[in-house]
Amino acid sequence: MTQKTITVLPGDGIGPEVTTAAIEVLERIAQKFHHKFSFQEGYIGGSAIDAKGEPLPEETKEMSAKSDGILLGAVGGPDWDHLPGAKRPEKGLLEIRKSLDLYANLRPVKAYSSLVGASPLKREKVEEVDFLIVRELTGGLYFGEPRKREEVNGEEQAVDTLVYKKSEIRRIVKRAFEAAQLRKGKVVSVDKANVLESSRLWRETVDECKTDYSNVELDHMLVDNAAMQLISQPDAFDVIVTENMFGDILSDEASMLTGSLGLLPSASLGATGVGLYEPVHGSAPDIAGKNLANPLAAIASSAMMLKYGFQLEKEAARVEEAIEKVLGDGYRTADIAQDSTGVVTTTEMTEAVIKAL
Amino acid sequence: MTQKTITVLPGDGIGPEVTTAAIEVLERIAQKFHHKFSFQEGYIGGSAIDAKGEPLPEETKEMSAKSDGILLGAVGGPDWDHLPGAKRPEKGLLEIRKSLDLYANLRPVKAYSSLVGASPLKREKVEEVDFLIVRELTGGLYFGEPRKREEVNGEEQAVDTLVYKKSEIRRIVKRAFEAAQLRKGKVVSVDKANVLESSRLWRETVDECKTDYSNVELDHMLVDNAAMQLISQPDAFDVIVTENMFGDILSDEASMLTGSLGLLPSASLGATGVGLYEPVHGSAPDIAGKNLANPLAAIASSAMMLKYGFQLEKEAARVEEAIEKVLGDGYRTADIAQDSTGVVTTTEMTEAVIKAL
Ligand SMILES: CC(C)[C@H](C(=O)O)[C@@H](O)C(=O)O
Ligand SMILES: CC(C)[C@H](C(=O)O)[C@@H](O)C(=O)O
Repeated sequence: MTQKTITVLPGDGIGPEVTTAAIEVLERIAQKFHHKFSFQEGYIGGSAIDAKGEPLPEETKEMSAKSDGILLGAVGGPDWDHLPGAKRPEKGLLEIRKSLDLYANLRPVKAYSSLVGASPLKREKVEEVDFLIVRELTGGLYFGEPRKREEVNGEEQAVDTLVYKKSEIRRIVKRAFEAAQLRKGKVVSVDKANVLESSRLWRETVDECKTDYSNVELDHMLVDNAAMQLISQPDAFDVIVTENMFGDILSDEASMLTGSLGLLPSASLGATGVGLYEPVHGSAPDIAGKNLANPLAAIASSAMMLKYGFQLEKEAARVEEAIEKVLGDGYRTADIAQDSTGVVTTTEMTEAVIKAL
Repeated sequence: MTQKTITVLPGDGIGPEVTTAAIEVLERIAQKFHHKFSFQEGYIGGSAIDAKGEPLPEETKEMSAKSDGILLGAVGGPDWDHLPGAKRPEKGLLEIRKSLDLYANLRPVKAYSSLVGASPLKREKVEEVDFLIVRELTGGLYFGEPRKREEVNGEEQAVDTLVYKKSEIRRIVKRAFEAAQLRKGKVVSVDKANVLESSRLWRETVDECKTDYSNVELDHMLVDNAAMQLISQPDAFDVIVTENMFGDILSDEASMLTGSLGLLPSASLGATGVGLYEPVHGSAPDIAGKNLANPLAAIASSAMMLKYGFQLEKEAARVEEAIEKVLGDGYRTADIAQDSTGVVTTTEMTEAVIKAL
């Protein structure tokens, strides 16, 4: 029996609905496999600003750090768009990543055969897609100093700083090589080494790390080329590793390939300790509270928690199989439906998954 | 009669072959419309390194600055990949952009109906695609200082700087609004304002400029979302304006949409004076010198020179029509051929265009 405390941070928009779904699935898994999961809820994002005056209250940070896994819904929405940078919902997300040193963002992108029809790409381009993006999450432009607005010779300018230390590069790159060893053994490292100093250090460091992974094949790709290859040959990738901002852009691009954005999970991991698991999709304020959201990405994120956070591989596989089953049986929330007949609600989809477990 | 001096910078790989094609087309246009174009050739990129020891020799800079338009082939290739940053072929391109203050990079992306079958995307997604990317080309991470490698507490790190002055943002944004007025009147400005200081200044400045263009519709989009929307709804865009690095990534992503990378031209313009015109594709060293390259992007770039550089609208239209005609007639170089029957060479394609003029 495994005993775990899970922090749930529902956040904004559809966040509460999809985390509720994931909790129900985790509870059923606990019951079936005789584990004990207890849940504690905290504020983050816009709802934290409304309730506590800041996007990441101290108590959220504390309870998160002490728990075994964090399940996050989504943050942000038009209600808070007018706020200054440091006070925005997204700041809560950036801060929790940084304060828990969650430097490794893993985003698997996989075609579900029953959904490839919904892809903007041709079926033959995407049906074999199955890769993992490993994005550095606590460095680069997101956190570098100085970051400021200033006046120079009477004119306003703004500055952000892209900085990477070698150790920051090394630890994320090692993760990618390790992940590749458990997959098809191919790593593509993405940078802009023909222009950026930080990318040249990145590329050098990747080459150094490579010597410890002789069974892994390595390619370097410029970020502009990678943005092309993701569309023209998405099934050629296995593991993609890249820095924070490039990872943000490429992983969102990649999420569109298979027609299943509503299904994509992510994990943000540190060296040790607690990880954070969240759907790739956003807070979708337009459909919030309407029982329309697709809960499968949050449920798939909880499967990543079982696997990466608790080493419960069998349980994770059970959840993933249940997702494939309900999709195979034709259950569709509105976002993945080909037409409007037989569209199910958030709660109906969740019940179907629980039944399939 | 218009009299113009054109600097041709063939560069590396397939560069010489495709600029030769474009020159032939321009010569025929001059003849037909009674203009006088004279051509002078200069070194840039890897071939400049080989011949002169640096990627942008002083004489190239001078002859370029004094001419009426610059036609560039492509730069770069594996022969020079081992060189340090400041000595690489790409540096020549960055330097000529900066020294001539070519801050506005225009990249039209348009579906050719006879080619949409070659797109990785479904036909219905791309057949209406017709947008213009306006990329800032002389600021941001590409040029910000400091940019360096250093040791801090015994550890190596590397730094790049993303900096924008308000005036740099204003001038590119105005270009985008003006372009939109001649098109469908819709601008999407792309930034990462939820994270970056420079993006917040960008967004503010865009909103300020907007007041002078009441007939243009404006939306702001986060760069990660833009990377998604380009795939899911590419035909919803009219004009996209963004900073240097985002523009690099998004415009290459966009170049894959319509299946016609080999046809896409670009123009890099300053406030006044000479502009630089070049195909979007790279130097393709694997097929260099084999008479296999697609010359249409270089030819389309020369049409942009006629239009934006020399205000020869009619002549530009004639070239564009000739390109459509040869494609409609089924001429295909290898890169855009659906199968291998009837594939034509670089010179055959060029002759076909000249005949169609
Ligand atoms: C909300 C935002 C700050 C965040 C990011 O850019 O990292 C999001 O886009 C993501 O990818 O998790
Ligand atoms: C060659 C390289 C420096 C250049 C850039 O990144 O600007 C190229 O990718 C481009 O888009 O023109």
